[in-house]
Amino acid sequence: MLNFIYNTPTKVYFGKDEELNIGSIIKEYGFKKILFHYGQSSLKKSGLFDIITAKLRENGIDYVELGGVEPNPKLSLVEKGIEILKREKVDMILAVGGGSVIDSAKSIAVGCKVDFSPWLFNIKKETPKEHIPVGVILTLSASGSDMSNSCVITNDTTWQKTGFNSELNRPLFAILDPKLTYTVSKYQTACGVVDIMMHTLERFFSKGDNDTTLTDNLALGLLKTVYKEGIVAINEPTNYQARANLMWANSISHNGLTHCGREFLMSVHQLEHELSATYDNIAHGAGLAVLWPSWALKAYKAQPDRFLRFAYEVMEVTPTDNKESDIINAINKLKAYYVEIGMPAQLREFGVTYESLEPMALRLTNNKSKSFNDIINVDFDMALEIYKAAY
Amino acid sequence: MLNFIYNTPTKVYFGKDEELNIGSIIKEYGFKKILFHYGQSSLKKSGLFDIITAKLRENGIDYVELGGVEPNPKLSLVEKGIEILKREKVDMILAVGGGSVIDSAKSIAVGCKVDFSPWLFNIKKETPKEHIPVGVILTLSASGSDMSNSCVITNDTTWQKTGFNSELNRPLFAILDPKLTYTVSKYQTACGVVDIMMHTLERFFSKGDNDTTLTDNLALGLLKTVYKEGIVAINEPTNYQARANLMWANSISHNGLTHCGREFLMSVHQLEHELSATYDNIAHGAGLAVLWPSWALKAYKAQPDRFLRFAYEVMEVTPTDNKESDIINAINKLKAYYVEIGMPAQLREFGVTYESLEPMALRLTNNKSKSFNDIINVDFDMALEIYKAAY
Repeated sequence: MLNFIYNTPTKVYFGKDEELNIGSIIKEYGFKKILFHYGQSSLKKSGLFDIITAKLRENGIDYVELGGVEPNPKLSLVEKGIEILKREKVDMILAVGGGSVIDSAKSIAVGCKVDFSPWLFNIKKETPKEHIPVGVILTLSASGSDMSNSCVITNDTTWQKTGFNSELNRPLFAILDPKLTYTVSKYQTACGVVDIMMHTLERFFSKGDNDTTLTDNLALGLLKTVYKEGIVAINEPTNYQARANLMWANSISHNGLTHCGREFLMSVHQLEHELSATYDNIAHGAGLAVLWPSWALKAYKAQPDRFLRFAYEVMEVTPTDNKESDIINAINKLKAYYVEIGMPAQLREFGVTYESLEPMALRLTNNKSKSFNDIINVDFDMALEIYKAAY
Repeated sequence: MLNFIYNTPTKVYFGKDEELNIGSIIKEYGFKKILFHYGQSSLKKSGLFDIITAKLRENGIDYVELGGVEPNPKLSLVEKGIEILKREKVDMILAVGGGSVIDSAKSIAVGCKVDFSPWLFNIKKETPKEHIPVGVILTLSASGSDMSNSCVITNDTTWQKTGFNSELNRPLFAILDPKLTYTVSKYQTACGVVDIMMHTLERFFSKGDNDTTLTDNLALGLLKTVYKEGIVAINEPTNYQARANLMWANSISHNGLTHCGREFLMSVHQLEHELSATYDNIAHGAGLAVLWPSWALKAYKAQPDRFLRFAYEVMEVTPTDNKESDIINAINKLKAYYVEIGMPAQLREFGVTYESLEPMALRLTNNKSKSFNDIINVDFDMALEIYKAAY
């Protein structure tokens, strides 16, 4: 078991109608003026925009607004946010939306404290030392960005997509009302189910000995939960139990709990970030759903014991004498589950061209100069093999 | 699923030799002078005292010391600590020890900010509004006080023992080096195993629907871990894997994670606090080991589905056609496990007299005027029944 730091300072307000407390929560922290950051017009259509602004006014909290965050949030909008913050005296950023809005807010929060582009944080040329606090009202269970230390941005000049981790990225508070996800489409719900599972799968199948008993048992418990509740949420969008368990799993899956004592590299996420940076139409979760089984079929021999636990304890594969085939069955069963909830099975279904696979593998590995040395080493050749197997 | 607030701000530094960073950690927070609070002479014998004070000096951190915390920490020592803090300009309290030292530190931390006795917090006559921060170096895996919001103190004038919960009670940071528990005796290790399990068992068997899928799966994963690693730690005191998993389970078991969405009353803890307040020789974990099975045999009919999950998923009872007998087998199996790791089976083994049971039940229920309405209602009659069954 590796030494680790566990740091989850985000205060979570979880449950029905908790967003109605947004004004009093912000007031209690003593903030006077906020940047209200959000995505598309659905926030206004649903009425949530009006509810939040009413609560802000009731509590005497001034705000400036910046909407328009797109999936795979763009650096250009982050820069607009930073301009606003350098002009106006804002105490905190309220991100209302899913992971894209939260990550955009995180980038603004560190970017407003420096006189260079926050993209330098993403490409690890600079390390943030200050920020202004970010609060969250979550409307999509997927990224876990509401408690995580990560911030993934797409540079819409170079079309690179990459993230950086910093403890400053952890939101100050997060309001999680499962009812706010009732209107999330089946497709987006499914993308979220994949993303949540993947955050824990990539931590469970990571470098480390089998001595992290507690971490592993918590990870398997989380995976079982999402496997069970995910399909319910797809079939019954207003099932509170399913939506609530997915939402809480979204947070726990990416806050660090499921990798305590283990290494943490997330090579399939790296493969996917390259994919959705190249094809902006690909939702992160959908990309992961296609890539993970291809990766797993190449990786399982590196950690057969872990893949067996996954097979029996999560995927409920009936044990046979042939353990290898049990593992392969489990991987295929997860792939079939993803297809059942509406995910594509192959990259070509997104419109990905075969010719684009090699350039993606080249960009991912910085022209064959870098690799992701996880339980298998994802170098250029391996990346290309995985992309091709997923094609 | 009930609405909940999840708040675990304590920053955890986990792993081998992390205590060597104590000076630099405190320095980074900017504290200049601390109260070094600890328990018995073992800290000096083991050399840990000298290591810590050397690291403090190296980093220019001044300290005053207050040792002598006893198991079931006493109000009189807390009052001494408050006197010191009112006299000296101290920025934080460093608690080095187990739950008793940490709880004593927590009480001093809120008590030094008021002009009345902190006992008023414990008996819920007052609510703390300020504190000075508490940092922890943990040397015993049991109470989970290193991340919890609770603080249990014994009033050594009235011999009442009771706790209060406040978010101010959560330590600022906690250093958890499993190696520091290598020298913990088999008996104290076993008491810790019970305490850790009980913190989650009392949350798992609490009021609430069966819709808390994630919370329940995490709770069961934690219980399986402690059941497995507990016996290893008893038999092999220097087994890092076992000590590390117990230590991390100690924190997670009581930080709130395993009751998200559920009610949280801990009636068996209440029964035990009365017991160890009356009999100061009874370690908290040992008291719980004897009381829980007696409580469970009266309570299982209130939540048969949960008791069945406990039976099959934690206690590894082989399912039969008779579910009730599966549950009873599981309860008895846990009792046998506790005896195997060195816990007493009956209260009389502690020297408890039969005549003292009724006065204890009377004091617990404030002369029959109050009860603990958990999955079964523990009023005077029920408390007495449980004490008698455990006798």
